[in-house]
Amino acid sequence: MILSALLTSVGINLGLCLLFFTLYSILRKQPGNITVYVPRLVAEGKVKEGGHFNLQRLLPTAGWVRQAWEPSEEEFLSNSGLDAFVFMRIFIFSLKVFSFGGIIGMFVLLPINYMGTQLTDESDFQSKSLDSFSISNVNNGSNRLWVHFSAAYIFTGIVCYLLYYEYWYLSSKRIANFYSSKPQPHQFTLLVRGIPVPHGSTCHDTVERFFLEYHPSTYLSNSVVHRSSKLQSLVNDADKLYKRLTNLKQNNDAPKRQRRDGCLGIFGRKVDMVDHYERRLGDIEDNVRMEQSSLEAKEVRAAFVSFKTRFGAAVALHIQESVNPTEWITEQAPEPHDVYWPFFTVSFIKRWISKLVVFVACTSITVLFLIPVAIVQGLTHLEQLETWFPFLKGILRLSIVSQIITGYLPSLILQLFLSFIPPIMIMLSSLQGYISWSQIQKSACTKVLWFTIWNIFFANVLSGSALYRVNIFLEPKEIPRILAEAVPSQASFFIAYVVTSGWTTIASELFQLTTLISNFISRTFCRNSDEEFEPPSIPYHSEIPRIRLFGLLGVTYFILAPLILPFLLIYFCLGYIIFRNQLLKVYMPKYETGGEFWPTVHNSTIFSLILMHIIGIGIFGLKKLPLASILTVPLPILTLLFNEYCQKRFFPIFKNYPAECLIKKDRADQNEHNMSEFYDKLTNAYNDPALMPMKYSERSESHRSPLLHSSE
Amino acid sequence: MILSALLTSVGINLGLCLLFFTLYSILRKQPGNITVYVPRLVAEGKVKEGGHFNLQRLLPTAGWVRQAWEPSEEEFLSNSGLDAFVFMRIFIFSLKVFSFGGIIGMFVLLPINYMGTQLTDESDFQSKSLDSFSISNVNNGSNRLWVHFSAAYIFTGIVCYLLYYEYWYLSSKRIANFYSSKPQPHQFTLLVRGIPVPHGSTCHDTVERFFLEYHPSTYLSNSVVHRSSKLQSLVNDADKLYKRLTNLKQNNDAPKRQRRDGCLGIFGRKVDMVDHYERRLGDIEDNVRMEQSSLEAKEVRAAFVSFKTRFGAAVALHIQESVNPTEWITEQAPEPHDVYWPFFTVSFIKRWISKLVVFVACTSITVLFLIPVAIVQGLTHLEQLETWFPFLKGILRLSIVSQIITGYLPSLILQLFLSFIPPIMIMLSSLQGYISWSQIQKSACTKVLWFTIWNIFFANVLSGSALYRVNIFLEPKEIPRILAEAVPSQASFFIAYVVTSGWTTIASELFQLTTLISNFISRTFCRNSDEEFEPPSIPYHSEIPRIRLFGLLGVTYFILAPLILPFLLIYFCLGYIIFRNQLLKVYMPKYETGGEFWPTVHNSTIFSLILMHIIGIGIFGLKKLPLASILTVPLPILTLLFNEYCQKRFFPIFKNYPAECLIKKDRADQNEHNMSEFYDKLTNAYNDPALMPMKYSERSESHRSPLLHSSE
Repeated sequence: MILSALLTSVGINLGLCLLFFTLYSILRKQPGNITVYVPRLVAEGKVKEGGHFNLQRLLPTAGWVRQAWEPSEEEFLSNSGLDAFVFMRIFIFSLKVFSFGGIIGMFVLLPINYMGTQLTDESDFQSKSLDSFSISNVNNGSNRLWVHFSAAYIFTGIVCYLLYYEYWYLSSKRIANFYSSKPQPHQFTLLVRGIPVPHGSTCHDTVERFFLEYHPSTYLSNSVVHRSSKLQSLVNDADKLYKRLTNLKQNNDAPKRQRRDGCLGIFGRKVDMVDHYERRLGDIEDNVRMEQSSLEAKEVRAAFVSFKTRFGAAVALHIQESVNPTEWITEQAPEPHDVYWPFFTVSFIKRWISKLVVFVACTSITVLFLIPVAIVQGLTHLEQLETWFPFLKGILRLSIVSQIITGYLPSLILQLFLSFIPPIMIMLSSLQGYISWSQIQKSACTKVLWFTIWNIFFANVLSGSALYRVNIFLEPKEIPRILAEAVPSQASFFIAYVVTSGWTTIASELFQLTTLISNFISRTFCRNSDEEFEPPSIPYHSEIPRIRLFGLLGVTYFILAPLILPFLLIYFCLGYIIFRNQLLKVYMPKYETGGEFWPTVHNSTIFSLILMHIIGIGIFGLKKLPLASILTVPLPILTLLFNEYCQKRFFPIFKNYPAECLIKKDRADQNEHNMSEFYDKLTNAYNDPALMPMKYSERSESHRSPLLHSSE
Repeated sequence: MILSALLTSVGINLGLCLLFFTLYSILRKQPGNITVYVPRLVAEGKVKEGGHFNLQRLLPTAGWVRQAWEPSEEEFLSNSGLDAFVFMRIFIFSLKVFSFGGIIGMFVLLPINYMGTQLTDESDFQSKSLDSFSISNVNNGSNRLWVHFSAAYIFTGIVCYLLYYEYWYLSSKRIANFYSSKPQPHQFTLLVRGIPVPHGSTCHDTVERFFLEYHPSTYLSNSVVHRSSKLQSLVNDADKLYKRLTNLKQNNDAPKRQRRDGCLGIFGRKVDMVDHYERRLGDIEDNVRMEQSSLEAKEVRAAFVSFKTRFGAAVALHIQESVNPTEWITEQAPEPHDVYWPFFTVSFIKRWISKLVVFVACTSITVLFLIPVAIVQGLTHLEQLETWFPFLKGILRLSIVSQIITGYLPSLILQLFLSFIPPIMIMLSSLQGYISWSQIQKSACTKVLWFTIWNIFFANVLSGSALYRVNIFLEPKEIPRILAEAVPSQASFFIAYVVTSGWTTIASELFQLTTLISNFISRTFCRNSDEEFEPPSIPYHSEIPRIRLFGLLGVTYFILAPLILPFLLIYFCLGYIIFRNQLLKVYMPKYETGGEFWPTVHNSTIFSLILMHIIGIGIFGLKKLPLASILTVPLPILTLLFNEYCQKRFFPIFKNYPAECLIKKDRADQNEHNMSEFYDKLTNAYNDPALMPMKYSERSESHRSPLLHSSE
């Protein structure tokens, strides 16, 4: 790629971003779009629908930037929760890293690269290849490479310092957040699995007996889990039907209430829909009651056990309870509305096997995803298509078709395939036996992260046959050389990737095109949607990997092609302000992990550093400076030691709360809160929502499952 | 090696063993040797020195075999402790495995191998090469190899079943042993490190305040650790001097009490030794008292914290105490006489670094040990010696010298080098920051095990340049092929190794040659030895690796050269009866880990199985049966999964005792024992022995440090 092409691409994408921003600042002020652009404020009742047409509403303004910028860190934290706060710290951390890296890169490394003569690119400045700005242009064996060498050491040192600071800062935030929290059921509750129920006894009694025997002073209550997937689908049906019914009753619109009962509502007798729905609801309710009564027998050998103090729960959590470690397995309970109920049918051995199966499935998806990539790459060669499908020859020769096929189709197909990945990973994680949505999301986040790194970074770097790519990992000695040959040559591709993919995804995140369209359609065509409005929650498992990929690109290309850094800085600046806006106005925090996403971010940064070092070792070797290559070897080792230290120093804080905090918090609670009232609530917090008694036919106002929200 | 050579070797070594046994059965009855052959019984006061010459004493008898055989498992367990019991289970387990393997190997695999014609060895039976009995002799591509294939699956299944059974059996023994134990200080005590002592406060007060705050109901007492290495050497000096003094006083032998005070006791004035010693002892005591008083300032930020119940200690052990995970680090305390005091000067960060350093040192010793092996191999070539040291040419040409050099010197040097390894590994482990001798021994055991496997098995198998050997581990794909080529060709070497090294070491273990000689010398030359007699303890860290090496050989060569199995069976039979004898009569159990050596044995067996599978994959490939090679691949995976399950199912039991046991045991204690008396003892159990007040000059009878033994 030559410089002018890059500049063109930057121009086009800047224009696109500006267009998105302008459209956003206009559309967000239209009353019909408030559920698209400020759904969170709507759900919190801070914004009301309505208002008339107004010319001012058509003028683009930048007020939203100020609104997003204004709240202090503390305000943002209390408003959006610790997870969102950690998410924003990723941007702040990246900005710090790449501001520093950018200064070194642009003012020290870039001039040195440009002054080299290795590539003998004699063209004028405009049509210079981007490679002239990369390390490839430095002369072989040149002493100037020692500047790159020192830059690698300095940059690594700075990144490690920032990582340490961030880990420290977030762990102190996590502890402070814990101290300031109200008593919540999940802090007092454990999930106990593998309960050995003796013959002739119920699960509930066994649990009661066991904990009264071994934790008599702290045990409070337990609620046994049931196998309820069939019941749950029935309850969901009833829920939907009930909503439709209330809707019908409210809009007392006679013609709409009449409908034929046959196929597609066209044939058959005319019936009153209210009567019809009420009868069906009654049937379902009978089914539910029958299922519920038979369900008592379908006990799963798992129970939520609540304790009187957090420390009591922690004691039972950390000490192996039974002589057989596969029985009485304890685990911290998630928030009640965060529980993922379907998993509970799985025993110790089954969960272990499903974990293995998921591991294998995930690995093969990650590795085999290269095949569609290869097919997509094949599609760009028209000749190949013609030989495969000779009957298409006529159509393919049309210039517009060939342009579409070679220009847009490949990346479209790739994007389509890529968009399936987060849901697939979520599905795999949910099979793994996690007990809460937040854990599933966390695990999917790691899976998607590795998937992205492998399939975007490595697949592009190691172009060539798919087999060849996997093969190099069986020859560890060759890795630095192969990477050092392949990575710098893809520099211009990744610079373009940051500009095109990076900038536009972040701008379209603001613009929310799909939500906007679906909102428009639903407003236009089905005015009486029975769907209850619910603000979305941010999909960490797809956003964090994307952001971390750009972080990886920045770190990896820091010494190779520092030209990428300014574009990344723009990306992270945009991302910071846009996601701050979205988290304040669009996304509703649903579950709170207490910042447990940070260790993933930390680990991926360490991985980027190590990758940079390995490539550095290879590149100094290729550049005929073997001494620098050898002297780089301690760098990854030191980085791994640093990581090991961080894991020891901070990771335990992100896993569990220490005794000190738990006991202090327990004592503060005893003074501040009415605990006996809380204990009453706690006792019922973890009942299966499907097992609640149902009385739709009689009642009309209150929502079915009060427990789902009682604990928020 | 041909068959007749093997038979000769077997004959010679059988003769040697018989000679050892005969000598043993005679010498053990001589009164002067009781401290060599029954030191444990002497220490326990069950055997008294004395008796006169008696012709019967010169007749060899086999009564010791009956005596070693007789005690039941329960008796042996209560007599020698769980660690010795686990040690004997290694033999029982190996006997089971190789009886089964031997039957398949000798009656199924061996005939098939012998019937093959691949090696076209046309000589008569006597001078047949041993390779005719190995898998190398089976024809390439022969369907008979499927028998070997099935044997690999069946054998793996049986070994896994036996491993499971043994793990299960030993974990139940461990729990039973815990239930039947008396209250012991280490069960109630934790070692706490990284205590953040605020300015102006003492360590003792800080600990007291912290545990009274967070564990008020279970905290009992604490004793702070001091930096006492200088003091300890002083105390040791005083100890020795004191013993010499009492000795002198008891044997009131005037001439001996006079000695010149100059160099070597030859020059200078004559002095009365008792006066002289008493004066020196007084000096040392003054020094000790001075050191002790200044030591109060030398507090280390570590303390032994005792609790009222075992469960209380376990709670504090398992929950992270402080917000900073590098402070208030808890660890189960060892038995008081098992504490390794010198380690205590080391902080969290220093201990972590020393762990890394030890890891690097241990790895390099293990890998670089190949260099003396290579030199030794070089020594066997006389020509090379002559070119290195031309002036030796005359001597080297003498036939007797050349025979010694080529025949005995290499293995002698190798043995010499090898004998340094266990002490070196013990030293490395002690630098690693372990707090007890038993942990140091356990860690050294693992180190010596890997060392042995690498330097005896792999170094012999992968003969060739040292660099080449390390290199193959950088090309994982090639490993099965290289091993499959190299391992079978060394079969005859290892068969001979079992017969020569295996049988004779086990027989000399019984005979105790070095102890016998040193005992003879000390009895003859220095009658008034001031050394207090102390029975030895079994060096698990050198014995277990040796036994496991033979286990590894058996498993690895099971499908390759089943001829090794009968010789191994004889080894394990001898080992069983001899070590039972030694553990009952010679070795005194000093520390009790509660059977924690078993997981090491389990892991090394799994490693042997995996090695066998990898070689199997390679050998079926070499033998032109690629299908069998591919079908063997699931075997190591299944074995690893089995191991993973065992680790989940049993390993936690070997790490800590579960809540159930702790609480039951605590309650039983409250009823059975006078706990307040025990608590008094507990409070002082972990005082540094060097800090005890010293009163040698006044008292004369009682031993200095009563605490060292009070808790046994």
